[in-house]
Amino acid sequence: MGLIVQKYGGTSVGSIEKIEKVADKIIEEKTSGNQVVVVVSAMGDTTDQLLSLVQKITMSPSSRELDMLLSTGEQMSSSLLAMMINERGHRAVSLTGWQAGIMTESFHTNARIMDIDISRINLHLAQDEIVIIAGFQGICVNNNITTLGRGGSDTTAVAVAAALKAKKCDIYTDVMGVFTTDPRIEEKAKKLNRIGYDEMLEMANLGASVLHPRAVEFAKNYQVRLEVRSSMCSERGTVIEEDKRVEQSHIVSGVAFDDNITRVTLIDVPMLSLSSIFTLLADKGVNVDVIIQGAPQQNRMTISFSIKTDDLSQTVKVLKEKKQILNFKDIDIESHLAKVSIVGSGMVSNPGVAAEMFTVLDNEGIEVKMVSTSEIKVSTIISSEEKELAVSALHDALIISKKAVYLK
Amino acid sequence: MGLIVQKYGGTSVGSIEKIEKVADKIIEEKTSGNQVVVVVSAMGDTTDQLLSLVQKITMSPSSRELDMLLSTGEQMSSSLLAMMINERGHRAVSLTGWQAGIMTESFHTNARIMDIDISRINLHLAQDEIVIIAGFQGICVNNNITTLGRGGSDTTAVAVAAALKAKKCDIYTDVMGVFTTDPRIEEKAKKLNRIGYDEMLEMANLGASVLHPRAVEFAKNYQVRLEVRSSMCSERGTVIEEDKRVEQSHIVSGVAFDDNITRVTLIDVPMLSLSSIFTLLADKGVNVDVIIQGAPQQNRMTISFSIKTDDLSQTVKVLKEKKQILNFKDIDIESHLAKVSIVGSGMVSNPGVAAEMFTVLDNEGIEVKMVSTSEIKVSTIISSEEKELAVSALHDALIISKKAVYLK
Repeated sequence: MGLIVQKYGGTSVGSIEKIEKVADKIIEEKTSGNQVVVVVSAMGDTTDQLLSLVQKITMSPSSRELDMLLSTGEQMSSSLLAMMINERGHRAVSLTGWQAGIMTESFHTNARIMDIDISRINLHLAQDEIVIIAGFQGICVNNNITTLGRGGSDTTAVAVAAALKAKKCDIYTDVMGVFTTDPRIEEKAKKLNRIGYDEMLEMANLGASVLHPRAVEFAKNYQVRLEVRSSMCSERGTVIEEDKRVEQSHIVSGVAFDDNITRVTLIDVPMLSLSSIFTLLADKGVNVDVIIQGAPQQNRMTISFSIKTDDLSQTVKVLKEKKQILNFKDIDIESHLAKVSIVGSGMVSNPGVAAEMFTVLDNEGIEVKMVSTSEIKVSTIISSEEKELAVSALHDALIISKKAVYLK
Repeated sequence: MGLIVQKYGGTSVGSIEKIEKVADKIIEEKTSGNQVVVVVSAMGDTTDQLLSLVQKITMSPSSRELDMLLSTGEQMSSSLLAMMINERGHRAVSLTGWQAGIMTESFHTNARIMDIDISRINLHLAQDEIVIIAGFQGICVNNNITTLGRGGSDTTAVAVAAALKAKKCDIYTDVMGVFTTDPRIEEKAKKLNRIGYDEMLEMANLGASVLHPRAVEFAKNYQVRLEVRSSMCSERGTVIEEDKRVEQSHIVSGVAFDDNITRVTLIDVPMLSLSSIFTLLADKGVNVDVIIQGAPQQNRMTISFSIKTDDLSQTVKVLKEKKQILNFKDIDIESHLAKVSIVGSGMVSNPGVAAEMFTVLDNEGIEVKMVSTSEIKVSTIISSEEKELAVSALHDALIISKKAVYLK
């Protein structure tokens, strides 16, 4: 007997019929002898419906009021799920974020969890009840309702699992697990049986939307054993845990990609302006990813960096405003780019893998415009039109043909 | 300058367009120099929509979970209203029941307010903010969300007004005020400029659904000056306050009625069973209204009482189960009855008014099946088919022809 935390996403509780299936899964876990704490997202398109009401009122809602409004979605789904479990003869109780003791920063719409007061959850567990917690939300020191931003319910689940020292945290979703790449792009994509935290973190950050990076980071920091699995069947999913693999034959775990990348190039910049440029962009919330710096000549150089295309107008505005002070000559923009990356903890001891990646891309005639590397990934910026070709070729060469032992 | 509490019902905030109008009214009150606290119901049919989801799950939902679910309706409307006011350049903040300090009994779906901790409301008022409170809800000592039952938002508004010692409490609704009788039945019905608490209490209890009796009682106990008025125009409504009228020419303030009444007659009952009968029914939540007891013969008698027809099956079930113990001979049921009542605080010093009522009904050929009286009302139980005729005749004779000075 142990304590299991389960998390169900919005599509898993998208209708009363689906809530029924979810209730079955929860009851199955409970009757197998475990204590069960469930974290649930808002039903299907509830959040979108609420946001469409907001759009009729204002284009710039107060973030405090937005949290007040959006948090109702999870409160609804959690109470409906508790009713369903009760109706099936088991005892369940729903808790809002504040009732569950989820304490966050006073930062609306994107707050981080600071602490969890588990006393009330434990009280209900001690009464042999199934505890259903409204995900995505918490309360700040001023007793205002906060929300956790994208992937917030994943984070709630992992944080609750960590605080309760749960045996594991099952993330139920509408896919079977974590795949070597997106199956919608590459039909040969395989489900991974397991993946390390760091690899998952890279995959998540690089656009594999199955699990939010913040949740993975939390799981890594508190060593919470995660499993991503489907709420529609009973097949095992992908376990995410500390990487303990001794075998290094499987160097690359997955091919990740991210769309809507833009490269910004500043021509003839003084070296002294570099820190100012990136401080300026960071202050405006622009996330600069890959940076390439040309060789300086007389303390001036050309510098390129990649950003999300969503941040482009903000970036250009800021740079043009400060053109005099930053003292660069010209600015050049290239949009319609994509980032394609290979991820794998085995790469740290296999320096040849980056070379292999470039060879594969070169054979396909794909021009690599920018590169960045970490110990467990190599990212390339390429033309958006060549993304699918690149993903497929890299997946074939670095995963399928290596017959990695951790695949099914 | 003073503090005004305003309450807006579900139809007043039934759409974004209506919320816009409500925001205008609130801002008008604020810019006239008053502090404003607003209590708001759930938008239009939100509650019905939530209940239809519940019906797909269970016919007997846990009342705790029902409160958890239904309280989201007011949380939504309060945050949307706050956004609308913010959008118009004024500062507003929405508060849930628990944030507003509304402490209730631990009795779900029909809790009474025990106390209000006004510290947070005062904090926001001190910052010159408009405070929008989610009506109908509170929190119990176990930190569970409770709801206040029918007319709950009225009660929230009055309780908040009492706690804050507000100058007045305006109840905005979809009618112009309190009428001498229902204008949908009697076109000669007039809006009252003012009415006493006790009269309003009788009117409310007798089916005039404009204001919930619990809210009126609360207002009377704490001497909160109420005004019922339309959210769609700026005309004055009906003020409800302590009856200070010296003139007694206007004896009857209104004609109220209530449908779906059933008369239950128990034949040949021992006198000793009487208290058992009514205790039994009270325990089952059956509200017994008028009771008529025949003259006893050898300690046995016939007894009739009226109930809401909704309670009929429950009543018959209980009585039949206990027939042996209660030792009555037979039970007789007459449904399709209505209660028609005249209400007026002037009646206490005018004993002739009941006689006048019977004369009017007699002239119309209407048979009075049961009667009950209090100091400020006379109620008659008559056939449902004769209800409209009775209302019209009584309204003509006792209100229109008296040219009551408190009418417009």
